[in-house]
Amino acid sequence: MSSSVSSPALFRERLQSQQARIDRALERLTPPESEYPPSIHQAMRYSLFAGGKRIRPILCLEAAAAVSDATPGIEAPASALEMIHTYSLIHDDLPALDNDDFRRGKPTCHKVFGEAIAILAGDALLTRAFQVVGEMEAPPERRIAIVRELAQAAGTVNGMIGGQVADLEAERKPVEEAHLHYIHRAKTAALIRASLRVGAIFAGASDSQLHALSRFGEQIGLAFQIVDDVLDVVESSAGLGKTAGKDAQQQKATFPALYGVERSREMARHAQQQAVAALEPFGERAVRLRELAALIVERSA
Amino acid sequence: MSSSVSSPALFRERLQSQQARIDRALERLTPPESEYPPSIHQAMRYSLFAGGKRIRPILCLEAAAAVSDATPGIEAPASALEMIHTYSLIHDDLPALDNDDFRRGKPTCHKVFGEAIAILAGDALLTRAFQVVGEMEAPPERRIAIVRELAQAAGTVNGMIGGQVADLEAERKPVEEAHLHYIHRAKTAALIRASLRVGAIFAGASDSQLHALSRFGEQIGLAFQIVDDVLDVVESSAGLGKTAGKDAQQQKATFPALYGVERSREMARHAQQQAVAALEPFGERAVRLRELAALIVERSA
Repeated sequence: MSSSVSSPALFRERLQSQQARIDRALERLTPPESEYPPSIHQAMRYSLFAGGKRIRPILCLEAAAAVSDATPGIEAPASALEMIHTYSLIHDDLPALDNDDFRRGKPTCHKVFGEAIAILAGDALLTRAFQVVGEMEAPPERRIAIVRELAQAAGTVNGMIGGQVADLEAERKPVEEAHLHYIHRAKTAALIRASLRVGAIFAGASDSQLHALSRFGEQIGLAFQIVDDVLDVVESSAGLGKTAGKDAQQQKATFPALYGVERSREMARHAQQQAVAALEPFGERAVRLRELAALIVERSA
Repeated sequence: MSSSVSSPALFRERLQSQQARIDRALERLTPPESEYPPSIHQAMRYSLFAGGKRIRPILCLEAAAAVSDATPGIEAPASALEMIHTYSLIHDDLPALDNDDFRRGKPTCHKVFGEAIAILAGDALLTRAFQVVGEMEAPPERRIAIVRELAQAAGTVNGMIGGQVADLEAERKPVEEAHLHYIHRAKTAALIRASLRVGAIFAGASDSQLHALSRFGEQIGLAFQIVDDVLDVVESSAGLGKTAGKDAQQQKATFPALYGVERSREMARHAQQQAVAALEPFGERAVRLRELAALIVERSA
């Protein structure tokens, strides 16, 4: 179906323009470095603008676009998703957690600003995300539904923190299949699923549209994490912008550890197919989401 | 005016019954220890139920009671305030921040569960607070207004995190008056003021009622922090349940350091008077808030 894909050049252009849109929104929605006390705002901005690909906010924008032609203000909840993602990276990188010195090729927040400010910068980005949603232009019932989505996806019960704890506790233990699936669903897929749902809710999706986009988000979130695990095994540190092979070194519960690289790759492709199947009711409107699904599975680093 | 105070025995009884009401709500609104992954829920509950006096949630309940006779469900936003307060204590106590081993006479969260889980338990309580407000029973516009209050008070711009950063950066430097006032207003008074405002908003306060309760909250928040500083100087560690004299040892910016103990006590009493004056429009309805103001200024440890 030629109608379901655009040219690679057009897709790349669209992607860059969405990234720029999110960067502008994050710039506007984060206190300036000069705001007192400056160190915390410098640290928040350092990590927010450290080269993130803005995958979650772009999924949010495209979910909204699949539902409605005009969703002015959608950059606000999209930015909140990126703030929550960035907070989780800052805290994950801390010495007490994954103890990473580099992220996307740059020194991590605590290496630059010290542990105290890094802990507080993570706290501040999480807090700011809810403030942005609280203050954005949208009907109150949609704003509060988005607060619920973010808090649930970021929380301890099948959410990001739950996944992070399960991941920490799985280190240096034999990997069990059910446990691995919990970690991936909670640690990564929950916030990716929420990215789709937040965009859909903001745009006024029907129940069936919300359901379809949730399903897409779950499957694409799963594919995303499997690909991440595979890249940690097959790529060099230079390509990843962080220390490669750390998962194996820390004996993390990963898909390649349990299934091997080839079967993991197949599983990622299968999840992508399931994700794309869920978009069927949207027809042409979901062309960008299908392209993003392909990008996520085919990305190198 | 005998009508404006109740007997000390009745007041104590009311206080205990409010504390029990908040404890029951926190019990209900926090995932059980058995919820997967258990360690994070154990850590959240350990710190939530470590003997806190529930001052912020009780201020919230009494602000609501000053505005309206019936505010069913007020325990939810009151509990959210206590979750945010508890998260801030867990993170403040971390080795990278204040490095405290004891809090209210018990080992701090990271001493019991390790640093990684303590960082995540703080994150989880902050996240849970917003989830509770997102899910509570109240008109959407009041729920979203409360999200805004909490995020603003907990944030970096004149909020709790801003105050914490300013406090860290003030250590071992000469104390300046304006800086000290910023720290106290942001680090402590902002969340206490929000406790009053959240109760008022939940109860449907008018603009002038909200304004009066905000003013009360600012002044009582200021008094609270001055008394805290004074207690750190004059009390023993046993009475405080934490290490006494730490402020002086860490050369923290405090009221006694700048003004001496006696003048600080006078300033706390003055703030109390200002707070009580702000309650005038409420007449008899504010009797509990006046009693709480007296309790805050007169408490020993």
